[in-house]
Amino acid sequence: MLGYFTEVNSVETVNARMGATINPRVRQVMSSLVGHLHAFVKDVQLTQEEWEYAINFLTRTGQICSDERQEFILLSDTLGVSMLVDAVNNRRPAGATENTVFGPFHVAGGPVRPMGYNVNLDGRGEKCLYRGRVVDLQGEPIAGARIDVWSDSVDGFYDVQQPNIQPKWNNRGTFITGEDGAYHYLGIKPVSYPIPDDGPVGQMLIALGRHPYRPAHMHYLIVAEGYQKLVTHIFAAGDTYLESDTVFGVKKSLILDFKKVEGDSIQWEAAFDFVLVRR
Amino acid sequence: MLGYFTEVNSVETVNARMGATINPRVRQVMSSLVGHLHAFVKDVQLTQEEWEYAINFLTRTGQICSDERQEFILLSDTLGVSMLVDAVNNRRPAGATENTVFGPFHVAGGPVRPMGYNVNLDGRGEKCLYRGRVVDLQGEPIAGARIDVWSDSVDGFYDVQQPNIQPKWNNRGTFITGEDGAYHYLGIKPVSYPIPDDGPVGQMLIALGRHPYRPAHMHYLIVAEGYQKLVTHIFAAGDTYLESDTVFGVKKSLILDFKKVEGDSIQWEAAFDFVLVRR
Repeated sequence: MLGYFTEVNSVETVNARMGATINPRVRQVMSSLVGHLHAFVKDVQLTQEEWEYAINFLTRTGQICSDERQEFILLSDTLGVSMLVDAVNNRRPAGATENTVFGPFHVAGGPVRPMGYNVNLDGRGEKCLYRGRVVDLQGEPIAGARIDVWSDSVDGFYDVQQPNIQPKWNNRGTFITGEDGAYHYLGIKPVSYPIPDDGPVGQMLIALGRHPYRPAHMHYLIVAEGYQKLVTHIFAAGDTYLESDTVFGVKKSLILDFKKVEGDSIQWEAAFDFVLVRR
Repeated sequence: MLGYFTEVNSVETVNARMGATINPRVRQVMSSLVGHLHAFVKDVQLTQEEWEYAINFLTRTGQICSDERQEFILLSDTLGVSMLVDAVNNRRPAGATENTVFGPFHVAGGPVRPMGYNVNLDGRGEKCLYRGRVVDLQGEPIAGARIDVWSDSVDGFYDVQQPNIQPKWNNRGTFITGEDGAYHYLGIKPVSYPIPDDGPVGQMLIALGRHPYRPAHMHYLIVAEGYQKLVTHIFAAGDTYLESDTVFGVKKSLILDFKKVEGDSIQWEAAFDFVLVRR
């Protein structure tokens, strides 16, 4: 018996309440969470009014969530938690392509397109040829790799954010590599955009003196039998927001020089090889 | 420029993003929060699946909230955060009555009742005479102290939880002390009850091997001009859950022996003096 809860014994008292036979991982995670939550309250001597604000903020964050909006993911993203979880779970050897945040705009189950397909269905934006290979750490091609790509439109919105404006599967595609591990498809050069900032997270960013923008990027999800899943972006070099991505997703190795192309219908070329690591 | 976000520089990178001219208290609170959140993720090496579970848990917690239900307060209460915030904000000299959690069931603006009034309007439960004085640290009576009292019914529910079953203001009252600082009123001896446990917090308590019960208690909110606000409970000695209150609200000084009374209509007497501290 620790005695009743006090400011001094608070963490031990709460954690001692857990049952003897609970899942050990639940015990580990929740004990650490209680420790850090209590340390936070003590560090800043959180006031009653601030606590009430926090309760209200979290409630509003939950209540704005819908099938099209995940405000808690935005909160996690903007506080760097999503990128940190990604980092601790995806440490890779030098030479491997780095992971970054998945984001809320992937759509599973899209149609597989033939190589060369133009995923830009609304015909708006600067056309770009994306090409490269999916290889292993030795540079050997990986056949049968499934590549999902998705980007925003020229207006800075994903198709799922504008279901009544954009064609379904606009700026999205799925491709499967052949024996040479190569891929190529047409899309647009993506543009920088603000994350949805008309909710509690937007209010938080204002209070923190931060902008809501992400630098332009093309999303990739690449899965191949026997290899670690790769979730990443290719960022366009020169973007205004590369050094201040509001979700902290940028890594140096993922910044690519989009090359200007002289031609009638294609303005840009983005060449990038993805290097996967065996499981 | 710190460079791009990494596992190592994550806290500094996120906090360096804050604007130069923001509110200093916002900076202090949010910097500490980011530090502790990131330390938590690193300590437990939170997996992607656990992060997804957390996002989903928080979302469900927000979405079950309504005018009658505040699940984030329950979460804060059951993790000891509410009591800790209360503790750091209400350090009092020896002899002063201690604070405890406010809880979600207070209703402001109730009618003021004359001393001796019976707040138990449904006529169910064991009748109890509550009496005592509101005094300062020197034992001098405090006149004009406004005393709000509220308790659960004999079935373990507050009136606001059962608006169609219990009379309005059942087991609630407001009293104002005269020159002698004394108070007395009739109510019932409260009973222990589970906090609402059919939502995410209830699921968490099960995973932690914990029960959802609070020991029987009478709530008090006492305000008097020139004195610190007192938010507290009187707990009934002998209750099964005194040492395992699911919200950690019990303090030794707040446990009272309810005295058995021989009589026709009143079964108990609860005598307690409240000692306020000057602002």
